[in-house]
Amino acid sequence: MDANGLFEQIKKKRSYLCIGLDTDYSRIPRILMDKEYPLYEFNKQIIDQTHDLVVAYKPNLAFYESMGAAGWVNLELTVQYIREQYPDIYLIADAKRGDIGNTSKMYARAFFQHMDFDAITVAPYMGEDSVKPFLEFENKWIILLALTSNPGSEDFQMTELKGSNSKLFQTVLSTTSQWGNPDNMMYVVGATQASMLDEVRKLVPNHFLLVPGIGAQGGSLADVSRAGLNERGGLLVNSSRAIIFADPTDQFARVARVKATEVQAEMEQLLIEKRIISAK
Amino acid sequence: MDANGLFEQIKKKRSYLCIGLDTDYSRIPRILMDKEYPLYEFNKQIIDQTHDLVVAYKPNLAFYESMGAAGWVNLELTVQYIREQYPDIYLIADAKRGDIGNTSKMYARAFFQHMDFDAITVAPYMGEDSVKPFLEFENKWIILLALTSNPGSEDFQMTELKGSNSKLFQTVLSTTSQWGNPDNMMYVVGATQASMLDEVRKLVPNHFLLVPGIGAQGGSLADVSRAGLNERGGLLVNSSRAIIFADPTDQFARVARVKATEVQAEMEQLLIEKRIISAK
Repeated sequence: MDANGLFEQIKKKRSYLCIGLDTDYSRIPRILMDKEYPLYEFNKQIIDQTHDLVVAYKPNLAFYESMGAAGWVNLELTVQYIREQYPDIYLIADAKRGDIGNTSKMYARAFFQHMDFDAITVAPYMGEDSVKPFLEFENKWIILLALTSNPGSEDFQMTELKGSNSKLFQTVLSTTSQWGNPDNMMYVVGATQASMLDEVRKLVPNHFLLVPGIGAQGGSLADVSRAGLNERGGLLVNSSRAIIFADPTDQFARVARVKATEVQAEMEQLLIEKRIISAK
Repeated sequence: MDANGLFEQIKKKRSYLCIGLDTDYSRIPRILMDKEYPLYEFNKQIIDQTHDLVVAYKPNLAFYESMGAAGWVNLELTVQYIREQYPDIYLIADAKRGDIGNTSKMYARAFFQHMDFDAITVAPYMGEDSVKPFLEFENKWIILLALTSNPGSEDFQMTELKGSNSKLFQTVLSTTSQWGNPDNMMYVVGATQASMLDEVRKLVPNHFLLVPGIGAQGGSLADVSRAGLNERGGLLVNSSRAIIFADPTDQFARVARVKATEVQAEMEQLLIEKRIISAK
């Protein structure tokens, strides 16, 4: 899927919601815990209830890896299920990988070939040759950390650089945007930093932004959207716990649909306000 | 294992060698490819032939993940084998993880609880709350990327910061060294940057450094060791491909031992030169 394909999905679904599958074993309903593939069973129900409201799903690798190889089996089954049942979904591996060239190439194989993800999140610290191997895969994306939503984003990302009026995250944006194009690169920009989105948009007006931090992490959807949406959509907003763990009982998937519908409805209004879609 | 335990191992083995288990399926001998656990079978032979020459092994996660869940099974078997057969080995997950707090905690569980690694490599870009969850596990270490051995280390790590005479990697060292201590934090410093090791030692005189880039990536062991060794050892030098893939036939493990012995012998001389151990 290229940027245009993503934009078509946004218009069709009247949504730019990404649901984060941060599927924490300790928080799934007891009834699922004894299943052979508990995380997969949980995800399947969430996906069946929400697929028409979202453009993307984003499994967070840590929650699968905490169960080791068995967790990876649950992840592989989830990816396979989405690919078979809902082929239009944009699928993001939230893995925060990145290493020297020959190693990044192996990570790319893991997520783009062994599993059929569309995109992977990558940390920029190791520079160009750690990023480029991911860009060699056709129709696959890299989503680079620029400005994250956590308190620690102050430590290095906001550091001011010598000889420019630029902070590190701004240099990351301006430098790395030369390595790919808006059809294969996207940026993570935290929703707790809505005021910084204008700064980000100056540097990467055409790139999609992936915004975490709505919901449990506390950013405002309206603020983020007004600053982040561009004429080609250009925005995916993620919500994880606030949707998938809204209800702790075996009604979790039905309640997740209610929560996702609320977010989708607000997104629809914001897309209309921005004249990206028309009112029905 | 704490820093003192590592130092004891260095003195006992007269070595500070870490062998990187970058076990690339496409490079293992054909005879192993059809086994049920090919990466594990390869690793087991390497380990049996080299365990007395090394202080540490460092599986590189990407090579296991490129085979998905099955690759993780090979990794889990490798970790289990080392723990059972050679309990004194220091075991590093070269995973380059790091995410917001609740996610880093799940990664820590994956590598410190589900598997019994001693240490995990972590990227610093997301700051303090992405690093601290790893430090909450007793006797476990974080190995933070400071200055890497690849060309892309120039892109951001070497960037000069405003209001100080400091490059980003130097600020990463001085800032993060306050978050832990020399018993639970170590730094990755690339061997291709031997000239920078003096700079690194000014900022973190007491921390262990993990130096990749010897061998296939081309750094000089003597230069790195003279600049990096401190009176408590303070150095692990990694070699991966130059040892494990020195021979492509079913004699690979025997040849790996020859190569590892060469490196160990040079290290022994350097430890004697530095008066860390006595000549025999």
